Amino acid sequence: MVQLKELAELVGARLIGDETLSISRVAPIDSAAPGEITFLANPRYAAKLAGCKASAIIVPPGVESAGHSLLVCANPYLAFARILARLQPPVDVPREIMAGAQVHPSARLGEGVCVHPGCYVGREVRIGRDTILHPGVVLYDGVKVGDACVLHANVVVREDCRLGDRVIVQPNAVIGSDGFGYAPDGRRYVKIPQVGIVEIDDDVEIGAATCIDRAAMSVTRIGRGTKIDNLVQIAHNVIVGEDTIIVSQVGIAGSTRIGDHCTFGGQTGIAGHAKIGNDVTIAARGGVTGDIADGQVLSGAPAMPHKDWLKASMTFPKLPEIRRDVQQLKKKLAELENLLKEK
Amino acid sequence: MVQLKELAELVGARLIGDETLSISRVAPIDSAAPGEITFLANPRYAAKLAGCKASAIIVPPGVESAGHSLLVCANPYLAFARILARLQPPVDVPREIMAGAQVHPSARLGEGVCVHPGCYVGREVRIGRDTILHPGVVLYDGVKVGDACVLHANVVVREDCRLGDRVIVQPNAVIGSDGFGYAPDGRRYVKIPQVGIVEIDDDVEIGAATCIDRAAMSVTRIGRGTKIDNLVQIAHNVIVGEDTIIVSQVGIAGSTRIGDHCTFGGQTGIAGHAKIGNDVTIAARGGVTGDIADGQVLSGAPAMPHKDWLKASMTFPKLPEIRRDVQQLKKKLAELENLLKEK
Amino acid sequence: MVQLKELAELVGARLIGDETLSISRVAPIDSAAPGEITFLANPRYAAKLAGCKASAIIVPPGVESAGHSLLVCANPYLAFARILARLQPPVDVPREIMAGAQVHPSARLGEGVCVHPGCYVGREVRIGRDTILHPGVVLYDGVKVGDACVLHANVVVREDCRLGDRVIVQPNAVIGSDGFGYAPDGRRYVKIPQVGIVEIDDDVEIGAATCIDRAAMSVTRIGRGTKIDNLVQIAHNVIVGEDTIIVSQVGIAGSTRIGDHCTFGGQTGIAGHAKIGNDVTIAARGGVTGDIADGQVLSGAPAMPHKDWLKASMTFPKLPEIRRDVQQLKKKLAELENLLKEK
Repeated sequence: MVQLKELAELVGARLIGDETLSISRVAPIDSAAPGEITFLANPRYAAKLAGCKASAIIVPPGVESAGHSLLVCANPYLAFARILARLQPPVDVPREIMAGAQVHPSARLGEGVCVHPGCYVGREVRIGRDTILHPGVVLYDGVKVGDACVLHANVVVREDCRLGDRVIVQPNAVIGSDGFGYAPDGRRYVKIPQVGIVEIDDDVEIGAATCIDRAAMSVTRIGRGTKIDNLVQIAHNVIVGEDTIIVSQVGIAGSTRIGDHCTFGGQTGIAGHAKIGNDVTIAARGGVTGDIADGQVLSGAPAMPHKDWLKASMTFPKLPEIRRDVQQLKKKLAELENLLKEK
Repeated sequence: MVQLKELAELVGARLIGDETLSISRVAPIDSAAPGEITFLANPRYAAKLAGCKASAIIVPPGVESAGHSLLVCANPYLAFARILARLQPPVDVPREIMAGAQVHPSARLGEGVCVHPGCYVGREVRIGRDTILHPGVVLYDGVKVGDACVLHANVVVREDCRLGDRVIVQPNAVIGSDGFGYAPDGRRYVKIPQVGIVEIDDDVEIGAATCIDRAAMSVTRIGRGTKIDNLVQIAHNVIVGEDTIIVSQVGIAGSTRIGDHCTFGGQTGIAGHAKIGNDVTIAARGGVTGDIADGQVLSGAPAMPHKDWLKASMTFPKLPEIRRDVQQLKKKLAELENLLKEK
Repeated sequence: MVQLKELAELVGARLIGDETLSISRVAPIDSAAPGEITFLANPRYAAKLAGCKASAIIVPPGVESAGHSLLVCANPYLAFARILARLQPPVDVPREIMAGAQVHPSARLGEGVCVHPGCYVGREVRIGRDTILHPGVVLYDGVKVGDACVLHANVVVREDCRLGDRVIVQPNAVIGSDGFGYAPDGRRYVKIPQVGIVEIDDDVEIGAATCIDRAAMSVTRIGRGTKIDNLVQIAHNVIVGEDTIIVSQVGIAGSTRIGDHCTFGGQTGIAGHAKIGNDVTIAARGGVTGDIADGQVLSGAPAMPHKDWLKASMTFPKLPEIRRDVQQLKKKLAELENLLKEK
């Protein structure tokens, strides 16, 4: 339970109403109950406030609601995220190496680290303060994990890879698997040992069952603040910039470099050795086959400007009709030509 | 070994031949041996029966075969599935918490539950009767699992998620990972805590490495009898109806609602916040960008009626030729116009 | 540290320079230091050699570099792969069943096998010599694994599946999950027990989180030397030939047969029951809906000859313009026809 006044201060909102209200949790606007707080991100839906039973509502400037205490701020969605985090009960895990975990004697763990049963922590591993390893996490030899990270169950980090601070990894993700590299020897393939690593910078989040391959010889890197969804493939030697959003089932092929603040929609594929600028947006299922300049908004495969793709893909179902028209035009035109010759 | 008579009764088939035959197992029609049973789903392949060495054959009405005992029934494929299940040896696992498993003292497990080594069962977990946890399964605090479920090795179910009865989860699937939700704060992203859950209803099957994200604030739900293949992504707040088939590598974006008895082919993508009706079929690799009415059969991306897609995609390789034709037509028509002006 | 002479002999290269040089590791051409070896695969980049600080360079015939010792050979990339492997420090793991592993007493393990903590080895499992199981690997009952395999952390191999020799499996891959098979019973689906297995032949590599389903009744097989990337789906009863390359996020549907020495680009989808010949190449994101003859190079979905696809997909953005042109042509032609009638 937190007083509304404290929440207003947390998010820098103007408080209209009862600042001593005790708020227990955040709830959706349709199901919120007394003692709860909800939010209205878009003034167009202000009509919903009339029937809302929440005690308090986070609203953008200009929205009024007689029956509720209000937190007025420019970005209600952001305020909602922060208040939700504030109202979460503190994580309740034992700050210790629990029975059934295997930690190599040469590993060094900071204060407040929690290692659940079934975890394996290899030789010379370093873990910062307050990091939580859920059950079944495997850290190979030489791995470094920063402070306040959360590695969910059955995450694997292979040898010598490094995670920064406040990195969150969802269950069953893999960091540092071998890159997919082979040298042809006639019709057979010889494995090229992948001796590089993966570096994950601060505040990155990695989705469930996502795979990030170690570099062939140097580094695969995910920049600060980048958020990666589930089942994403990031190949060896890829460099991703900061604050980039990579939605589920995207695949990024080897040695591609991606800038800051990009967004890749779900199931997008990006070819190898491409250079993608900053602030690039690729709509879902896009296929990128080469370099992309800063600020482009692309769709389709091969990717093209989003507006062009919209028009072309709306025309696509009419293709058989267009073809028939063209064949008829050819016929008619030939008839006309003959007619003119005769005259 | 089961008598043919018992199998006939199990599937409601008419038995022609020796009802005392002992049947040991089911085998493919080409490799079946004496003592085995096979099936013929399609009368068109009845010629195969001549060389078949099986003792008994499940056939549709109207098929005869002098040298075999027959089980005649309307749906031989269904009968085959049921007989195959009947002939499986009973699952042979110790009905106990095995050494090397970690079960929190506050967890409550029903009779006949098997917990293999390397499993982790958190606080206040509830598991129904006869459920099997294979090695390395992790159930976070507050998880509820029903009766007669099978959770294969290294499956992770995160906090407070609920599974009904007879749910089968293939290895390394993840249920209840955080939904992919962030609020922009300038160019950075702030994580929105995902405080909802996942509910899996009775008789659902979930494929290997499939990920089902917990809701932001309420529930992600998979309806009774729905079958999900491997490597599928189901985002937060998605609601899937009953008896729906979701083939491998499909991705369903957040808050989408899907009806009953749909089929989504492999690698299909479905956008967020869409409403998909009942009995909708999307062919493999379809891309659904909005709402779909009941009973539609769609293909392509963006999805269109399957017949339209077939024609359009067959015409697609001819696009360069069509373009050349159009350019030539324009030229010829201009020549004709000039010719006419001159006359 | 290895003498250059030994490396030359290893790869059958002609040595120009100091054969007693001690080489410590392989490094990229731009960052190599004294004591290291690098390689030049393409003579076009020979200008880079001038500034290169490596002690030795692997080069194709005809390339000279005054300041370096040279290993001259026909395939520098292959030589690089072999030298890199030679210079890797030997794998340093205890050749024993480590504390915290669960190995059934009926399992038989060869000499030099390493079983890490958190592994589970079921009844009647057979493991050859020198195989390494990393932490959390689960081998169900009856699994057979050959010699010198490496199974990375949290890999799952389900009952009775077989791996040959020198098979490498990246973390969290799943071998032998149930195939996706159901018989309709009205609107509901009845599971068809999947009683077949998976066979992985020698020298196969399987990527992280890749899933290979067991056959319905016989065998799903991956042929010798085939390399499979991360997050790939291989359905039940698929047969893949030898030395085939399957890039990340490819999906292959049930009962499809694939020949030798094929290459499937990332995110490609292959329909069920297809026959794909030998030496077939499908570019990234291809969609294969039927049989493919030997030696084809295809792109697009549905897949077509790569050159046709290049032209058609380059024309695609012009589709709205083509349609407008056709409509205008129809109008103009009608005008001309009227004009001619009047004359």
